[in-house]
Amino acid sequence: MRAITLLTDFGCADYFVGAMKGVILSINPHAAIVDITHEIPPQDVAAGAFTLLAAYDVFPAGTIHVAVVDPGVGSARRPIVVSAADQFFVGPDNGIFTYIYDRDPSFAAFHINNTKHFRQPVSTTFHGRDIFAPVAAQLSNEVRLESLGSLITDPVRLPIPLKPEGPNARIIHIDRFGNLITNVTRDIFPDGATLVVNGRSISAIKDFFGEGVADELFGIWGSAGFLEIAVNGGSAAEILGVNPGDSVETRIHTDD
Amino acid sequence: MRAITLLTDFGCADYFVGAMKGVILSINPHAAIVDITHEIPPQDVAAGAFTLLAAYDVFPAGTIHVAVVDPGVGSARRPIVVSAADQFFVGPDNGIFTYIYDRDPSFAAFHINNTKHFRQPVSTTFHGRDIFAPVAAQLSNEVRLESLGSLITDPVRLPIPLKPEGPNARIIHIDRFGNLITNVTRDIFPDGATLVVNGRSISAIKDFFGEGVADELFGIWGSAGFLEIAVNGGSAAEILGVNPGDSVETRIHTDD
Amino acid sequence: MRAITLLTDFGCADYFVGAMKGVILSINPHAAIVDITHEIPPQDVAAGAFTLLAAYDVFPAGTIHVAVVDPGVGSARRPIVVSAADQFFVGPDNGIFTYIYDRDPSFAAFHINNTKHFRQPVSTTFHGRDIFAPVAAQLSNEVRLESLGSLITDPVRLPIPLKPEGPNARIIHIDRFGNLITNVTRDIFPDGATLVVNGRSISAIKDFFGEGVADELFGIWGSAGFLEIAVNGGSAAEILGVNPGDSVETRIHTDD
Repeated sequence: MRAITLLTDFGCADYFVGAMKGVILSINPHAAIVDITHEIPPQDVAAGAFTLLAAYDVFPAGTIHVAVVDPGVGSARRPIVVSAADQFFVGPDNGIFTYIYDRDPSFAAFHINNTKHFRQPVSTTFHGRDIFAPVAAQLSNEVRLESLGSLITDPVRLPIPLKPEGPNARIIHIDRFGNLITNVTRDIFPDGATLVVNGRSISAIKDFFGEGVADELFGIWGSAGFLEIAVNGGSAAEILGVNPGDSVETRIHTDD
Repeated sequence: MRAITLLTDFGCADYFVGAMKGVILSINPHAAIVDITHEIPPQDVAAGAFTLLAAYDVFPAGTIHVAVVDPGVGSARRPIVVSAADQFFVGPDNGIFTYIYDRDPSFAAFHINNTKHFRQPVSTTFHGRDIFAPVAAQLSNEVRLESLGSLITDPVRLPIPLKPEGPNARIIHIDRFGNLITNVTRDIFPDGATLVVNGRSISAIKDFFGEGVADELFGIWGSAGFLEIAVNGGSAAEILGVNPGDSVETRIHTDD
Repeated sequence: MRAITLLTDFGCADYFVGAMKGVILSINPHAAIVDITHEIPPQDVAAGAFTLLAAYDVFPAGTIHVAVVDPGVGSARRPIVVSAADQFFVGPDNGIFTYIYDRDPSFAAFHINNTKHFRQPVSTTFHGRDIFAPVAAQLSNEVRLESLGSLITDPVRLPIPLKPEGPNARIIHIDRFGNLITNVTRDIFPDGATLVVNGRSISAIKDFFGEGVADELFGIWGSAGFLEIAVNGGSAAEILGVNPGDSVETRIHTDD
């Protein structure tokens, strides 16, 4: 049994998510459908990409992840399916799978141009229901990937790299608590190094949130595997004056 | 395997939805339970009716839809089960299934007056758990519809018809983005026709949201099959000064 | 098939809940995962305890409830698994299972100190994914309880008792509508008794919410089995000036 996960910016108040599930169950009544989240900020592809990155790797091999944050729905952007890390990823070709490509450079991406499995008529506003859900359900029925469309080699990528370039780190996500998630992983952060964010030097690395004192900015190795900038009981984003999407000067500082 | 869907105004913060699922699994441990939404505005039966309409028809035959937006819980309003469109609908008789009756006029509605399958004691405040969930679970166990109660011919209907009467259209729903969903379908809207809403003439029909320019009201064939009034990146409801539940003069205008 | 329920304060916007489900499905692909809620107010262990109490008993025997409201994550607080009322409860030892102990005094609690089933490496911030989800999944695979750790006899309890001590009742929960849920059950509330809350005498007991007139405080036997203080269409908490967590003088008054 292959699980199908859903990650969207549709919210939970409307019929959108229910309709995607209905389409899936009509094609595979035994599908195990799992919500990752439907509360990605509207049209925030980067937030969707991060959330998928943080969740996908604990799922079993063969899982099919449907990710629909799709400001270009109805335009010429391609629907794609990606095979990577022994799992499948279905969604628009707008960069939402960037970090999956980074994690598994041997990925294969296909432009879904075989319309056979689409729900007809295909609307211009809801490809989640009409393209992505039915294609995912067909995959869960063991339809062959190659039958869905043509291999592509130029999938769209977001501009922020998953690994820092030299000492220049980046903020890849701000979560709803105001924690700043960087693209710094343990293997590239030397003992005793300091992170400089917007000119502020952050040297303390705490083991858990409760260790921080009021208004103190500190680093913490977050559960997604990245160095996060946090404040105990407050918002690091607010203290640092950082908004989602901002380019933040972030640098790994070592004494040598 | 018959899926059971849930649509309520209970929100997701309390134990209500979890309790309904527990009751269902106690009766049928293999039920595939699917949330449509629990964020219908409190006691807004019309919003529940629209959301169900927009979601139900992609589900497989035999699906059981439980819809509980139930301001009259504990009063004399009847619990009912409806067979329509090869699916089942369980909930209070307060009009929430109006559009299902419109879509399948050969529906059959039953007053659930056989208390045998109710959870005892039946509370006065939570029939979702005590009546609707157990009845739905029994249906998923293939209990016969006729054994649940007596056929009725006068189920409650909402006053807004699913089809316009002549040129007089209606707003049947305002979604959370402020889009106004009318009861106008493609088959009754001539090429070149104009929709007049609150005195404003809307003639442009766009193919997708991104085509609209700032503050421009336009029509778009929405994913539920109806003509919607929208604004790219804004709220049509706000621009038109329309609130949920308002009676809005809406007219199809043709030159001939 | 054993169902696994999830109750957390993680919200639904982040990857946390999805990651817990992925871990569970990796260990038991056939697990039926049910969300009770993820909207417990952050770190409000008492609200989690009440919500679990109100939901657990309708689930089938053998159900595994994972409850993660865990302000002490990463500190020395123990992860535990509890066998009670023919079901299982997995979470931190911080009082979240208090009312389960009250309901089934013959419960058995185990400190999960066998790390064999943990996801490695165990993070300091996300035991929901790294400890509680995998342990629950192993239980659903019929792993023996005793193999998970050592019996303990001193699990942490919240200070508010589930049963009133003599005439002194307590508010155990305020729901999102502002209803005050007391710890008063029918068996200990004599006919004609009055509840005195913050000095206000509440004698009317209504059968359903719609019976109350504007601003009238009344009692109602809520769906969780407790006497609730409510106002039709308003917030009893607001009228009485009560906030979550407040100690409220609540007394059962009888004439004799």
